Amino acid sequence: MSKLIGNAIFGQSGGPTSVINASAAGVFTEALRQTGVIEKVYGAANGIVGILNEKFYDMGQEDPAELELLKTTPSSALGSCRYKLADLKDDDTDYKRMLEVFKKYNIRYFFYNGGNDSMDTCNKISKFMQQSGYECNVIGVPKTIDNDLFGTDHCPGFASAAKYIATTTMEVYLDARVYDTGMITVIEIMGRHAGWLTASAALAAHKGHGPDLIYLPEVDFDLDKMLADVKKVYAKENKVIIAVSEGVQTKEGKFIPELVGEVSVDAFGHKQLGGTATVLANYLKKEIGCKVRGIELSLMQRCAAHLASKTDVEESFLAGQTAVRCAVDGMTDYMVGFQRPESGEYKCEIKLIPLDDVANTESKVPLEWINEEGNFVNEKFINYALPLIQGESKIAIEDGLPRFAKLKKVLATK
Amino acid sequence: MSKLIGNAIFGQSGGPTSVINASAAGVFTEALRQTGVIEKVYGAANGIVGILNEKFYDMGQEDPAELELLKTTPSSALGSCRYKLADLKDDDTDYKRMLEVFKKYNIRYFFYNGGNDSMDTCNKISKFMQQSGYECNVIGVPKTIDNDLFGTDHCPGFASAAKYIATTTMEVYLDARVYDTGMITVIEIMGRHAGWLTASAALAAHKGHGPDLIYLPEVDFDLDKMLADVKKVYAKENKVIIAVSEGVQTKEGKFIPELVGEVSVDAFGHKQLGGTATVLANYLKKEIGCKVRGIELSLMQRCAAHLASKTDVEESFLAGQTAVRCAVDGMTDYMVGFQRPESGEYKCEIKLIPLDDVANTESKVPLEWINEEGNFVNEKFINYALPLIQGESKIAIEDGLPRFAKLKKVLATK
Repeated sequence: MSKLIGNAIFGQSGGPTSVINASAAGVFTEALRQTGVIEKVYGAANGIVGILNEKFYDMGQEDPAELELLKTTPSSALGSCRYKLADLKDDDTDYKRMLEVFKKYNIRYFFYNGGNDSMDTCNKISKFMQQSGYECNVIGVPKTIDNDLFGTDHCPGFASAAKYIATTTMEVYLDARVYDTGMITVIEIMGRHAGWLTASAALAAHKGHGPDLIYLPEVDFDLDKMLADVKKVYAKENKVIIAVSEGVQTKEGKFIPELVGEVSVDAFGHKQLGGTATVLANYLKKEIGCKVRGIELSLMQRCAAHLASKTDVEESFLAGQTAVRCAVDGMTDYMVGFQRPESGEYKCEIKLIPLDDVANTESKVPLEWINEEGNFVNEKFINYALPLIQGESKIAIEDGLPRFAKLKKVLATK
Repeated sequence: MSKLIGNAIFGQSGGPTSVINASAAGVFTEALRQTGVIEKVYGAANGIVGILNEKFYDMGQEDPAELELLKTTPSSALGSCRYKLADLKDDDTDYKRMLEVFKKYNIRYFFYNGGNDSMDTCNKISKFMQQSGYECNVIGVPKTIDNDLFGTDHCPGFASAAKYIATTTMEVYLDARVYDTGMITVIEIMGRHAGWLTASAALAAHKGHGPDLIYLPEVDFDLDKMLADVKKVYAKENKVIIAVSEGVQTKEGKFIPELVGEVSVDAFGHKQLGGTATVLANYLKKEIGCKVRGIELSLMQRCAAHLASKTDVEESFLAGQTAVRCAVDGMTDYMVGFQRPESGEYKCEIKLIPLDDVANTESKVPLEWINEEGNFVNEKFINYALPLIQGESKIAIEDGLPRFAKLKKVLATK
């Protein structure tokens, strides 16, 4: 079978991770190696927004050493977007524009790196190209710290965030118990709908320096139950560490800041919903009367490349590389996914998941991995997550600080 | 001159750092080597509280490999305290008790690791022992991320916090500019009275990935001036990163949360002062109307041993080791300090500072290191701080996570 000859474009979408650029490095280095098949390799500025605006970079002009540095550079080097395509039946403007740009630049390979929404976008674009009789191979590259993509054992980006969360929790654990007085620490972790990241704090407990209680969005939150849990630990230990997902809510759908009734009022009288960690810590201070500290791991949990998992960096690179190889081999409409052997040692095996299946389905922490009390995860989660955080990414250092990739970003012209 | 023969005790005081245990490792390994002079080496549980309560550990019973691991274990391994001794003329109870314990255990060497208050404590105890005719050599070991101890070029603990702040700011910088929409990020950094840590964010800017504006407690804060600064950067860049000390205040003494008038009200109607980052971010959102994010570096900036400066780890160890050597040589009533050559390459030289001089005097960022606008630091700060953050501490890793020291903590008995 003859190979599709033309140009390739790659875009990054949604919230960045520590390793999303490692997938970019995988796509770019592999695509640049496919001479005779792929002619030009483009990087879209801000995902599909860059395609619609015809703003993309000629990656062949980048220094290979800088592309190598992408492996250890956090965030989205090309820029990202949260642009949602309309349904084709409602509005075909963007689709037509995309086709026009693809034709103009002879783009025959489209790689898109993102989470659920981005895979949906990928799928819609591919279907439209097919309907229009325009030949283009489309492969999705997974990405999300939330680890909620359907069909894959885990998602690139999750393990590095998990390693950051576990390591930081271990360090905070030691810091939060230096005094012989009582103290409660609340650590707020990302993941609105899926508790994978918050559950990762259990890895710190596995090493003896972790939280006492873990609350995931998979379990209906009950403030009274939590208070009882905290009081029990406090009575015994005089110290409590709580890992809580930003997304926990009661069965009535109320989030913690609403529940505790803490709203801040600014100088203009406007109400402002506070962060979960702070309001929960304040609530516990009032109820229990000891010193408290609310900690939000904020952007750090998704951008701390200096603490990335080597396994995650390598797998993210592999995902990008595999996407190109599959597309060049004539495959289209798949997302690259991972699976592991059913038993025995952990090994990352590639699995291709049809975009039709993956789009817009969320994967959550299985309920049988959560304890009966609904306030911790069991050994099954540890066995799942531990292999993924192995190995320390070695970032390039210059003058005691990270040396991140510097791209020339030469705009493509026609 | 014959050496003072007897036992030694070491205690940790005040807020912990990433490297306070490296000083402990320096004290313990050196003291345990001084056979024939120092007989038993004790570690006080929770600083002088442990001495008053006769709760301390026999460090000779620890595995040397675990003492070595202390170098890379954050927080206070022995426990800390914030106990303030009364003035001797007001109440001599604690002093007499301390003398009683020192006599009972034949303690002839006392090493205390802490900041301003701890050096004051150290000094008071030493003076009392001298007045009582009890021979005991007392040496202070400096410690504080705040870098505000008088008489020393810098303090153990500062550089690791600075390296954490600079690295994290670089990573957040990349994360905070992935979208092509406007965004303002406020990073809140520790240091109530001295701006050394907040100024460290300038190291990230020195590498091209840092804040646009830096506000230190050394400069009177002016909300309108700051808003004008932010608007100016925003108009040009569409992205603003602000590093702000938790301690900035107006010349009338008002902190930002009071100033912006944002107080949170809980379910019981109690007012709660919010964190500086959050309230400032909310204020800017209202004034400028773009997306904002408030980030508090919280405990992480003082406990992130995984990102410690190798220079800092080594110097902290050296400070502990030197304290023991000086005391054994008959010196007393000094704090170990550092100085650097007046010109040429950075080198850490030891300097002994009389405890009388150091106690309760705060060192601040020199005003000539701050720009005229009062919203950034200049090259002088970079030249000062950059050598201190050099080198990456290699922490022990087990199963992808830190392996921190595990002490047996065998209680000393008489």
